[in-house]
Amino acid sequence: MDDAAAIHTLTARKVPAKTLNVPTTVSPQLQRSISNLASAPRLAMERMPRTTDEWRAFVAVADAQAASLAPILAAMFPHTMNVMQIAGVKVREITPASLDPAKSGKVLINLHGGGYLLNGGDASTGEAVLGAHYSGMKVISVDYRMAPDHPYPAAVNDALAVWRAVTADRDPASVGVFGTSAGGGLTLALTLKLKSLGLPLPGALALGTPWVDLTGASDSYAVNAEVDGIFSSFDSIGRSMAALYAGSAGVTDPLVSPIFGDFAGFPPTILTTGTRDILLSDTVRAYRSMRASGVEARLEVHEAMSHAEYIYAYDSPESAVAFGDVAAFFDKHLAG
Amino acid sequence: MDDAAAIHTLTARKVPAKTLNVPTTVSPQLQRSISNLASAPRLAMERMPRTTDEWRAFVAVADAQAASLAPILAAMFPHTMNVMQIAGVKVREITPASLDPAKSGKVLINLHGGGYLLNGGDASTGEAVLGAHYSGMKVISVDYRMAPDHPYPAAVNDALAVWRAVTADRDPASVGVFGTSAGGGLTLALTLKLKSLGLPLPGALALGTPWVDLTGASDSYAVNAEVDGIFSSFDSIGRSMAALYAGSAGVTDPLVSPIFGDFAGFPPTILTTGTRDILLSDTVRAYRSMRASGVEARLEVHEAMSHAEYIYAYDSPESAVAFGDVAAFFDKHLAG
Repeated sequence: MDDAAAIHTLTARKVPAKTLNVPTTVSPQLQRSISNLASAPRLAMERMPRTTDEWRAFVAVADAQAASLAPILAAMFPHTMNVMQIAGVKVREITPASLDPAKSGKVLINLHGGGYLLNGGDASTGEAVLGAHYSGMKVISVDYRMAPDHPYPAAVNDALAVWRAVTADRDPASVGVFGTSAGGGLTLALTLKLKSLGLPLPGALALGTPWVDLTGASDSYAVNAEVDGIFSSFDSIGRSMAALYAGSAGVTDPLVSPIFGDFAGFPPTILTTGTRDILLSDTVRAYRSMRASGVEARLEVHEAMSHAEYIYAYDSPESAVAFGDVAAFFDKHLAG
Repeated sequence: MDDAAAIHTLTARKVPAKTLNVPTTVSPQLQRSISNLASAPRLAMERMPRTTDEWRAFVAVADAQAASLAPILAAMFPHTMNVMQIAGVKVREITPASLDPAKSGKVLINLHGGGYLLNGGDASTGEAVLGAHYSGMKVISVDYRMAPDHPYPAAVNDALAVWRAVTADRDPASVGVFGTSAGGGLTLALTLKLKSLGLPLPGALALGTPWVDLTGASDSYAVNAEVDGIFSSFDSIGRSMAALYAGSAGVTDPLVSPIFGDFAGFPPTILTTGTRDILLSDTVRAYRSMRASGVEARLEVHEAMSHAEYIYAYDSPESAVAFGDVAAFFDKHLAG
């Protein structure tokens, strides 16, 4: 690294205001999702929670809305769900109607998204249900502890405890771990933790638009601010969530922001994002870091998709392609 | 496809003006490139060429600037260059100092970019020189005829004539074709043409931020307008170039806009783009169409890169990674 950046003044780029029409280059279902996101009420800056009690209230409202999706998903993607505990951690074991006996030796662990604050309890299973349906595999969805009451390292410890229990009587190479957003970051943090402990790693990982840089440095935090219809601005809420989660460890800890970790020796990994995704850069940077470390990695990008929209536009063919790619990747790379 | 999009009014998204700082997440060399692009004089809308003579003058100025890069690249990436004709088409045969005898059975054809108007003659070899250097293979750079004097199908016919001659005494599977922007689109058009003629296809393709939709429908034409520092606006110049090139065939002809073509049976293909690229969506859509057709395709995205910036930021480690990925892909997939 030379000192060019330090000794020259760098010029910022001015981008004018613009109007983004719903593109004709995606399916009608995804067009409708994009349109709905544009017309949905936005989180007003002044309404952003400030105190712990305000955060709890904010989370309760958001989670109730997310949980209301569960019966819709259950109708479209039939499954049974067992709420249980593994190693003292709340989990939901999801068995899809599409369960494929030929894949019964493989199992998936899902770490849900939500910025380490949202999507607990009944709101935790959206991605897990879709993942189970498209893979034909059983999914253990981890309802890990979250901020503000349980900052880092509670989530990593919960994921680790479930991992240890699931792999106690099973080949770790037959277990895949997947997650979106904070769940993608947590998937990487868990794998970094396993590596540091000298434990066997999962057989494969799937990272959906993973939140890997909680410092906010990624270029797409600026470029796709207000372009993304789901996670519209890092500065309005992401930075607060990052601070609440990181706690005393700070946002540069590699188990909080895995982009600062060393991915050498990681298992095959598939990463998914969209062109409107505010975490497009987080995903791309994680992919490039993995490739630079010699990891077998695959990058999937979807036209005009916002952050995690493959979950919320669950009726779109693009969602089926995204989950289908993940399912095929696990099927290929997991032992068993 | 249901009629949901037709019967509902779709809501556009408003994005406020923003300032994009040079990101800290890329190398100092790429930071400098991004900064230089932000401070460079912009093409003023009112200065856009209107008449054929104005276009010729515009092209002459731009090509002289592009050609001035050649001696710099020659110093950094030593090679010999033979200006010659193949099947009546002007080409430049580039033999890199890095030529690898172990790869002497493989050869590459490069179709340069420039919107089917720019980068003719001495300006045509930037990407070819980099491709030759990083691959250790000989590259035949095609100086195909261009608009406004020679609209479609002149470029396709020139590429086809060179292809036929090069493969007359050589296994087509040992020949790779690569190109950026219009050169990426032309690579696809050539391969579609070969397929329609029932001729053998190249062993592998490399598409750098390929221009595949000359209708302007891709979402990133809007999202990354003025974000991209190299191809800043489709509406200011891209649409005019598209019309001049397409001529009477029109921009929806699959050999003009290959996104409307059928990629089934295509050879293994690597596609490269960046998060600030105005053709991010063109690249992603081409990749998804290939995957949907069962083509073995690989997508590479680079943090904060604008359109084709891996060529112009030739001194950056990111450029080396981009060309290194292409070289490894050709090495793996080409016969010989």
